[in-house]
Amino acid sequence: MRNKQVILRDCVSGFPKETDMSIVESTLTLKLPEGSNEVLLKNLYFSCDPYMLFLMTNVEPGSVSYALPLSKPLIGFGVAKVLESEHKDYKKGDLIWGLTKLEEYSLVPSTQIQFKIEHTDVPLSYYTGILGMPGMTAYAGFFELGSPKKGENVFVSAASGAVGQLVGQFAKLTGCYVVGSAGSKDKVDLLKNKLGFDEAFNYKEEPDLNATLKRYFPEGIDIYFDNVGGKTLDAVLLNMRVHGRIPVCGMISQYNLAQPEGVTNLTNLMSKRVRMQGFVWSDFYHLYPKFLEFLLPHIREGKVVYVEDIAEGLENGPAAFVGLFSGRNVGKQVLVVARE
Amino acid sequence: MRNKQVILRDCVSGFPKETDMSIVESTLTLKLPEGSNEVLLKNLYFSCDPYMLFLMTNVEPGSVSYALPLSKPLIGFGVAKVLESEHKDYKKGDLIWGLTKLEEYSLVPSTQIQFKIEHTDVPLSYYTGILGMPGMTAYAGFFELGSPKKGENVFVSAASGAVGQLVGQFAKLTGCYVVGSAGSKDKVDLLKNKLGFDEAFNYKEEPDLNATLKRYFPEGIDIYFDNVGGKTLDAVLLNMRVHGRIPVCGMISQYNLAQPEGVTNLTNLMSKRVRMQGFVWSDFYHLYPKFLEFLLPHIREGKVVYVEDIAEGLENGPAAFVGLFSGRNVGKQVLVVARE
Repeated sequence: MRNKQVILRDCVSGFPKETDMSIVESTLTLKLPEGSNEVLLKNLYFSCDPYMLFLMTNVEPGSVSYALPLSKPLIGFGVAKVLESEHKDYKKGDLIWGLTKLEEYSLVPSTQIQFKIEHTDVPLSYYTGILGMPGMTAYAGFFELGSPKKGENVFVSAASGAVGQLVGQFAKLTGCYVVGSAGSKDKVDLLKNKLGFDEAFNYKEEPDLNATLKRYFPEGIDIYFDNVGGKTLDAVLLNMRVHGRIPVCGMISQYNLAQPEGVTNLTNLMSKRVRMQGFVWSDFYHLYPKFLEFLLPHIREGKVVYVEDIAEGLENGPAAFVGLFSGRNVGKQVLVVARE
Repeated sequence: MRNKQVILRDCVSGFPKETDMSIVESTLTLKLPEGSNEVLLKNLYFSCDPYMLFLMTNVEPGSVSYALPLSKPLIGFGVAKVLESEHKDYKKGDLIWGLTKLEEYSLVPSTQIQFKIEHTDVPLSYYTGILGMPGMTAYAGFFELGSPKKGENVFVSAASGAVGQLVGQFAKLTGCYVVGSAGSKDKVDLLKNKLGFDEAFNYKEEPDLNATLKRYFPEGIDIYFDNVGGKTLDAVLLNMRVHGRIPVCGMISQYNLAQPEGVTNLTNLMSKRVRMQGFVWSDFYHLYPKFLEFLLPHIREGKVVYVEDIAEGLENGPAAFVGLFSGRNVGKQVLVVARE
């Protein structure tokens, strides 16, 4: 079977470029090795996420990370349909989400499947976003690490992104005051008019982030949900309240830098007794059923909305991925590989 | 009554100097206002601690800190004897530890007294150190924030200091592997030969801290008890293990800098899911009885030791305090105001 793929052509250094990837066609055998526990997937929706970059750069000596081999398809989360299965839990026609590859068809070990999709009255693409890894990331980071209380002050960076837009809505559901930062007027409008943030600002138009935060948070910040790191984090540290929490979800501002920016205000962790904690959603894997139970009714009732930026077709995969790092996407970046 | 004092002459900028303070004599009335809840103390042992600097520098606009007025005596923790009391819990002759002033006699509100001293079979000076604020800091930071488990790898900076020497011994009691850094050969010897650290090194002789840490922790660090911040913290971040913890107790390397050093490796918080948390001992005030119950038997049996650097007389107060910032003290810096 012919299989179109987006492969890694060159290791990325600095900002990823479309030319770091290329589109090729390979072939795939439909027959699975018996007893292999493997599953053949038809990929439907692919999730373009910043962390994918970690697999595409040269691995530093001593790093725990691992690199994608050159000429192999990109790896990431996606929604797929099972075509063939050698694992008893999955059968032909099942819909799943999990780690797959950026190609039309993927042969994957069944262990890479995260969950079978049981609820299809919501858009299937949601399982790459609000109901997938980014959704769980927002949920675990905000509720488990952020320990929010009604009336607290919440700040979210990259607030219109796949994770940020949910953190803001979860904060409003909890009765918090929430302010988001983003990188364009359109995104700021989205935050205020569609996503229910109390306030939002375009960080590119704020020459003094410390002053900006003092304006929006005269009493300080209880929870900063960090998606960007760097200068924003540094300004936030000056504005945290005593016993504040900083779930560290991402530091996208630092990923392309040869030398990361220095964060200079960490003594505030001490004086304000702040808890700053990195996490990944999979540490909270066991909460997925509880998460669905919480979120599905809110989605069905329209109380939580989700903005997707949908690119069509594998050919547009490299551009969709690269766009994440210039903030071109508005909302969760999804790539449609096939509609069904 | 004549009362010798160490007062703040000038606001400190950069490194504190002895000339920022001066020794003066004032007078004090012995009679307490009736119903005032005040207590008149004869100061015995005074605790010289780095945090005192925060009260001696100019307050930045927007800071939650507060400054000591010029010409007033320095404030800090100490052991004292009650001479007169207008509070029912304290009577003449009681020994207490709490916030007092660097002078012979102090009139303080009873709320500044932390605890009455019940156990006097150990040196009284211990209530400025191992059984006082630094001891509780080590205990709360290591056990409550560090969540240590047997067999884990622990790194402590400023390891021979008032807090660090206890963290190392608590780590050994827990069955951890523990390495300390300090700033002289004498201190390193102390760590290895008297305080039971598995390994210790002089950070001033290590040009590449990252390489040093990789040598002592080939499998990485589970708990970093941070007393210094800056470059050491930055190197540690490269060497943390997944789910590591960093209790942030102090960042003494940064206190004298006009512009703090930038910490560049914070993305490791994320990739290693590290929890980094500032704290102060008083958030764990309620644990003091449990702490005494744990530590007193260890002290009596010689299973936990404590190294003090004792300066004699108020006149030597400024030098003792200033010495903290060049690392001149070996062990906990105590100043004897009066022996009884």
